Amino acid sequence: MAITLDAAAADFEDRFKAFLTTKREVSEDVDAAVRNILATVRVEGDTALFEYTRRFDRFDPSGGRMTVTEAEIGAAFEAADPKTVEALTLARDRIAAHHARQRPQDDLYTDAIGVGLGSRWTAVESAGLYVPGGTASYPSSVLMNALPAKVAGVERVVITVPSPDGLINPLVLVAARLAGVSEIHRVGGAQAIAALAYGTETIRPVVKIVGPGNAYVAAAKRQVFGTVGIDMIAGPSEVLVLADATNDPEWIAADLLAQAEHDTGAQSILITNDAAFGRAVEAAVQRQLKRLPRAETAAASWRDFGAVILVKDFETALPLTNRIAPEHLELAIEGADEFAGRVRNAGAIFIGRHTPEVIGDYVGGSNHVLPTARSARFSSGLSVLDFMKRTSVLKLGPDQLRQLAPAAIALAEAEGLGAHARSVAIRLNL
Amino acid sequence: MAITLDAAAADFEDRFKAFLTTKREVSEDVDAAVRNILATVRVEGDTALFEYTRRFDRFDPSGGRMTVTEAEIGAAFEAADPKTVEALTLARDRIAAHHARQRPQDDLYTDAIGVGLGSRWTAVESAGLYVPGGTASYPSSVLMNALPAKVAGVERVVITVPSPDGLINPLVLVAARLAGVSEIHRVGGAQAIAALAYGTETIRPVVKIVGPGNAYVAAAKRQVFGTVGIDMIAGPSEVLVLADATNDPEWIAADLLAQAEHDTGAQSILITNDAAFGRAVEAAVQRQLKRLPRAETAAASWRDFGAVILVKDFETALPLTNRIAPEHLELAIEGADEFAGRVRNAGAIFIGRHTPEVIGDYVGGSNHVLPTARSARFSSGLSVLDFMKRTSVLKLGPDQLRQLAPAAIALAEAEGLGAHARSVAIRLNL
Repeated sequence: MAITLDAAAADFEDRFKAFLTTKREVSEDVDAAVRNILATVRVEGDTALFEYTRRFDRFDPSGGRMTVTEAEIGAAFEAADPKTVEALTLARDRIAAHHARQRPQDDLYTDAIGVGLGSRWTAVESAGLYVPGGTASYPSSVLMNALPAKVAGVERVVITVPSPDGLINPLVLVAARLAGVSEIHRVGGAQAIAALAYGTETIRPVVKIVGPGNAYVAAAKRQVFGTVGIDMIAGPSEVLVLADATNDPEWIAADLLAQAEHDTGAQSILITNDAAFGRAVEAAVQRQLKRLPRAETAAASWRDFGAVILVKDFETALPLTNRIAPEHLELAIEGADEFAGRVRNAGAIFIGRHTPEVIGDYVGGSNHVLPTARSARFSSGLSVLDFMKRTSVLKLGPDQLRQLAPAAIALAEAEGLGAHARSVAIRLNL
Repeated sequence: MAITLDAAAADFEDRFKAFLTTKREVSEDVDAAVRNILATVRVEGDTALFEYTRRFDRFDPSGGRMTVTEAEIGAAFEAADPKTVEALTLARDRIAAHHARQRPQDDLYTDAIGVGLGSRWTAVESAGLYVPGGTASYPSSVLMNALPAKVAGVERVVITVPSPDGLINPLVLVAARLAGVSEIHRVGGAQAIAALAYGTETIRPVVKIVGPGNAYVAAAKRQVFGTVGIDMIAGPSEVLVLADATNDPEWIAADLLAQAEHDTGAQSILITNDAAFGRAVEAAVQRQLKRLPRAETAAASWRDFGAVILVKDFETALPLTNRIAPEHLELAIEGADEFAGRVRNAGAIFIGRHTPEVIGDYVGGSNHVLPTARSARFSSGLSVLDFMKRTSVLKLGPDQLRQLAPAAIALAEAEGLGAHARSVAIRLNL
């Protein structure tokens, strides 16, 4: 059973606040261990990278075994179910088409006094994509992380993926090839992040590192930030479903469980205006749990972090939604379109009863890397912009300099920066 | 004397690499102290905030003295030199006009099979701007940080500024008012960051924190990241000037010194194709240093981190420029426009002999908060986008769901996520 909160109850505000601030992750303190790994790979290069890989992954990447070959990628395509390859290809095409619309426009213009101003966008030169090993090695995530980089124009996209005991998910290779990834290396953990950030004899450094990983990978990304750019540090996934009583409780329960099966720290929340409907969904969750392959994970997530919040109407739900700032928001209510336009904080919104969030995970076209843990209040899902940067441009002639110089000199002097003032004044023979 | 590097020398690549990786900052390890301050303010609120302020700033903010009043802002305007207020107003207008062009467009569309897709941009609800105390309390930085937030549509922009012994730069108050800041609180350090991130009885929490600060402020921002959004952590400033022998060496020397006077860790680099011109600039630097109010700082910066790099032509300088990825790039060369279009990594480019970088610091209109320490390879200057976030939208009807369902189910099954597959299949009665 998930907890139930009634927005009309006297203690709701206190309980809702406590609910909002509940931690769903235990953050392991691995900083010291990670610092040591990074420093060692930085100094020793491949020697250290290979040694850590032998130790942690029971795989020896030396002797040319580290980098995935063309033959291996070919074999992965051969081995894959053609239906899956077709599905990945459809996903690739839809994701690429949607992300192509995100390419920013340069803006170069001349203002009223003749000053040339502008913003020019360029892609980062290279990007590293960390792909987790084992069960979290999702081909869909390879597409979602690599395609925005390729659409941005990044020339070199490099994957590192651990291959415990030499094993690697062949669908990761298929997705990487479909996405246009240039290199795939069989290394993982903090040592892979070190190789991407600092470079080794065999892996040239990249400029930006993205992709999910365990506590070591997350700590390593934080530590190399500054040397390279990184994406956000993702937490456990979450969904908020707003649903009225006209929905089939089984559909809504299925959506809540799709989120819950990711991780015991995942969170599924239902807000409804009908207490009986809320109870029906809870009952459906319990029924469906019995038939799920990942029932244990989903049950723990729903029990520990799931919630049913009862509101008198969905108008009441709007400020609660904005405070929750969910990664995924499903609107299975009347007037969902209009409601969506009024939501301020959400990573992605899924409108109407026929848009289960899972479509967005795979084939909708929008990105499934989205801000978790209420960070949709201040951040956005992964996009083409994450692989580009803007350079501002300024151009004055003698006339424009004469017009703007007095103000610049006045401000430099007010700030006590004499050399600043002089750098302008000297050009006017002042 | 700055160091001199000759791109034609046999050991150039090694020396240039060493130059690129020279650290210009000593990073104090203040993490533990900051962690303690944050935790204390989080638990004790104003009591702790006021106590730290009494201890570190010798100022008692209790009894309603923390928040700057309308009367104080009025008095600051009265006390200010009208020429400075006029200059700040011109800067405000130009910065606001330029940043208004950065507002992103929503993109809502329907694709070929009838799927509704889109991106909607919204402003963060509130932003905190940290303003340093003492000599680094720059009114121009108040404009550069606050105006992008206001242009983005942030309703509540809050400044914290330490007032050692109760003193505050009145021009900070003037700039804050001109920029439309809602609240100004006289607190600083890690305790101010804690108040902005967690809130106290008198300061409501914000969603995003920006602005420069000392090692404690930088560490505090890193630690609260996740609870709130933060901007980049700025390092010492730098300029790269490309100049040929047709320039007046005095002008170029003045530009190098304008950067050097910021901080002993600042860096000024000249790349020229004429050795004699390089020597003339060095001589001019030494001459001008004698007359600068901040000569000691500028001399140390130039001596420790300044450089003159000699190239045979500016074509050779292009890859060096992209590797340096300077915060500021001045192009005082023939064909500067065309060259600028080929630069990939730079925070801001200043084109031609009449565009000293200082114009961009104050009144050009573009932002002066720019990526330092080679981070222009992967990040951009502060902009309206830093105060907005994107929500993706997806909408399917029954027909679109039927078309996309098989691929989504195939991928969910390939990834072993049974509840994902079920959440789609259940809607098709599969």
